[in-house]
Amino acid sequence: MSRKSLAHLECALANTVEMLNDSWTVLILRDAFLGVRRFDEFVSDLGIARNVLTDRLERLVGNGMMETRLYQERPARYEYRLTEQGKDLFDLLMTLWSYGERWKPPAGPRRQRVVHVKCGHEAEAVAHCGSCGERLSRREVRIEPALPVVQSRLEQAAATG
Amino acid sequence: MSRKSLAHLECALANTVEMLNDSWTVLILRDAFLGVRRFDEFVSDLGIARNVLTDRLERLVGNGMMETRLYQERPARYEYRLTEQGKDLFDLLMTLWSYGERWKPPAGPRRQRVVHVKCGHEAEAVAHCGSCGERLSRREVRIEPALPVVQSRLEQAAATG
Repeated sequence: MSRKSLAHLECALANTVEMLNDSWTVLILRDAFLGVRRFDEFVSDLGIARNVLTDRLERLVGNGMMETRLYQERPARYEYRLTEQGKDLFDLLMTLWSYGERWKPPAGPRRQRVVHVKCGHEAEAVAHCGSCGERLSRREVRIEPALPVVQSRLEQAAATG
Repeated sequence: MSRKSLAHLECALANTVEMLNDSWTVLILRDAFLGVRRFDEFVSDLGIARNVLTDRLERLVGNGMMETRLYQERPARYEYRLTEQGKDLFDLLMTLWSYGERWKPPAGPRRQRVVHVKCGHEAEAVAHCGSCGERLSRREVRIEPALPVVQSRLEQAAATG
């Protein structure tokens, strides 16, 4: 999409989308969760162009999701690690993974399984309420205020009977 | 990102990222969850260019997340509605929303609250295991097999002591 800011939407979801920037960025974060740390490892695993990777890693460091760490002194070489803010993407990445497993499961030898160690089953992530712990569903959340465009259609429909 | 296929990654998460296509697509889905249905409503709410919106809606219908529905006969006019596959994005959109609320909360009069009707609190979505219902954490999931690039770094580290 065009790189204009989404700040005018005043929306937490849009802010996350803006931080995630593009598909490559999400895949770099996925790789980081899977233990990838070094520039050449990202290149090799994702098949991403080096200039694109450089740009996306810089953005990820800039927005606080990743940080660099020296792993070799002569010559100086740096790894890319998730910060606390980056690690906090776990829930989001798990729902991305689970959605794909339901609607477009991959095939082939690289396919990975995510196992919930505690129960031994494949972990399909579902959203629960952070306050009460219950399963969240679309019918059980109320979003307020309504968007102006939706509000005005509803009012129009009510007026015309 | 380049629009080359991500199928070579053989990854459910990459498949979801590919279906979501770009940031505009995610924001259109957000609007659909918030009750937006008509072309001009998407334009007005998001500030998206009409040609971009046409393209993204066509993709969303093509990939099964949305469908058109006739709402006026003369002239024929169509609304865009979420399919079951589209509605199943709820968990994912909720984690996108919650992440933004934690790390880049918006300000301003448009800002929306998502309330969990059952408990009355703002709903912060957290990922639970679909099998046992427990909270998922990064430490409690095992992902197998390891990526080849990670595996080879670990083996190299073990060999050199």
